[in-house]
Amino acid sequence: MKRIQMAHGGGGRLMQQLLREHVAAVFGEPVMHHDGAVLVGAMADGELVMTTDASVVTPLFFPGGDLGKLAVYGAVNDLAVTGARPVALSLALVLEEGLPLETLDRLLASVKAAADEVGVSVVTGDTKVVERGGCDRIYAATTGIGRRLPGVRIDARRVREGDRVLLSGDIGRHGVAVLSAREGLSFGGAVESDCAPLWGPALDLLTAVPSAPFLRDCTRGGVAAVLHELARAAGVSVSVEEASVPVSEPVRGACAILGLDPMSLACEGRFLAVVPPAHVDAALAALSEHSQCPGAAVVGTIGAADPGGAVWLTTAFGQERPLDYPSGEHLPRIC
Amino acid sequence: MKRIQMAHGGGGRLMQQLLREHVAAVFGEPVMHHDGAVLVGAMADGELVMTTDASVVTPLFFPGGDLGKLAVYGAVNDLAVTGARPVALSLALVLEEGLPLETLDRLLASVKAAADEVGVSVVTGDTKVVERGGCDRIYAATTGIGRRLPGVRIDARRVREGDRVLLSGDIGRHGVAVLSAREGLSFGGAVESDCAPLWGPALDLLTAVPSAPFLRDCTRGGVAAVLHELARAAGVSVSVEEASVPVSEPVRGACAILGLDPMSLACEGRFLAVVPPAHVDAALAALSEHSQCPGAAVVGTIGAADPGGAVWLTTAFGQERPLDYPSGEHLPRIC
Repeated sequence: MKRIQMAHGGGGRLMQQLLREHVAAVFGEPVMHHDGAVLVGAMADGELVMTTDASVVTPLFFPGGDLGKLAVYGAVNDLAVTGARPVALSLALVLEEGLPLETLDRLLASVKAAADEVGVSVVTGDTKVVERGGCDRIYAATTGIGRRLPGVRIDARRVREGDRVLLSGDIGRHGVAVLSAREGLSFGGAVESDCAPLWGPALDLLTAVPSAPFLRDCTRGGVAAVLHELARAAGVSVSVEEASVPVSEPVRGACAILGLDPMSLACEGRFLAVVPPAHVDAALAALSEHSQCPGAAVVGTIGAADPGGAVWLTTAFGQERPLDYPSGEHLPRIC
Repeated sequence: MKRIQMAHGGGGRLMQQLLREHVAAVFGEPVMHHDGAVLVGAMADGELVMTTDASVVTPLFFPGGDLGKLAVYGAVNDLAVTGARPVALSLALVLEEGLPLETLDRLLASVKAAADEVGVSVVTGDTKVVERGGCDRIYAATTGIGRRLPGVRIDARRVREGDRVLLSGDIGRHGVAVLSAREGLSFGGAVESDCAPLWGPALDLLTAVPSAPFLRDCTRGGVAAVLHELARAAGVSVSVEEASVPVSEPVRGACAILGLDPMSLACEGRFLAVVPPAHVDAALAALSEHSQCPGAAVVGTIGAADPGGAVWLTTAFGQERPLDYPSGEHLPRIC
């Protein structure tokens, strides 16, 4: 089996061979060049959005996805929730000496397939190699640039009392999928990660409801973290009905066994949106067109001004309690 | 001493605290946000250039620089050699559990100072934490976007027989500085890394000689790797006079002792340029204004068409021999 050697990162002949045979073979010539990619005419008009994402997930491959997909969707979805159409991606890799080249090839093919799915290109890259033990097989950093849709302005401060809170699909799948793959657990049927590109649903939602004031993908910290960031940034309270939050049966079961809260589990293909009440039906109709939005639902309401940004959960038993800000202790290296 | 904990990467309260107190404190609010940064009006005209760089240098601090400076200059210099003015940077970090927060703070301050020096902002970021042993303290990936100067077209295929090859300053300092810091060696006086931003010199050179067909910063693999890439991409032979290549005495001494060739040692603040013979004086005059261009000199000449792209070195003794493409085996994790 061919493996990564230190010289693959040394700037010499072996590095050129690695880039030519394994990177340029997938993405084309420009990506192997050390200097930047020129995007002729890409920015004829519109505002530019830039976002970046480091990917350190373990295991590298899990039900429903892998590190390569996460690296692409992570950047694409950050662009999508600012209302920006992805224009180009960069890919920086840190490889561990001894990494099987077959593993690298599988992940690069996955990056390429994910980028193609969104219609965006990886235009430039960098590859470094560290000694055995210097990293855990492979880490990636993707940066995305995009052009914002005209007229769209995603800004938590624009939410108003009475606006409704939507989730684009059922939550918690990515966290459970990675955890079960890592620990060799199975919860009455495989739970697949929800990892998926969100530009399509975001575009359709923002086309149907251009006045939507807030969109955010629910990754580390899950829906709970997004709700707290929204409440704090907007200076409002937010109320969520637990019973209306879409959670699949296998995810619910896994969470019950493991003592996890689906609300703080990472998703990699779901967003939370705030829309004015008059536009809820249009928003749900826009999402219903997309396979990555199963069970999209209204889950809560923006409350009165509250500088502290409280988040309230109405339980299935009708009791109202504060929803904790996740501590961030469980599930490291989830993305 | 405060140290990085796994929960600093978990998406919850501790991560928000880390971002607020250590990242946003340095770069301002926008960088801590998960979604992208909107660059209003940044791209009113001109072509966009995008480049990315992973930084894994060890030690983190070395004479003349540190990982933070390298991360910024790496991206800025890749933009500079395409003739693009830096517009914005992103910063993705992978932190090892147990990293002293003081070390993180020093490196972030260094990133900020380096970016300020170039007049560019870090506009977005991402921070991941891996378990102890999952990386070596800290790795960074920076992506830069820039706007290309109108009329400039850097393309190896535009070099012509008789064009002259310039180096912007003395070579080999970064490689020797990092190696001596790593091994605790000293070579008759400290050798400092040449790491420096190259946008200023590149701008002045391209303003003085807009027809310059080729510019490339000499990083991993050093000047030798750049010469080979140039010769191959242009389909020409290139001849270099060893005696005219600027190398400082301490670097020369260190290379003699260690059996290293300065031509294949990494620089982090030097570029190679090709200019038509009539413009050599204008090019050297432009570089002479800049402190990061000590000893800029003409070192060679573009030869006849040669699909194999041979690189010839005329030694101090007047003999001509092929210059090897560096193997990339020595000096891992140099940048």
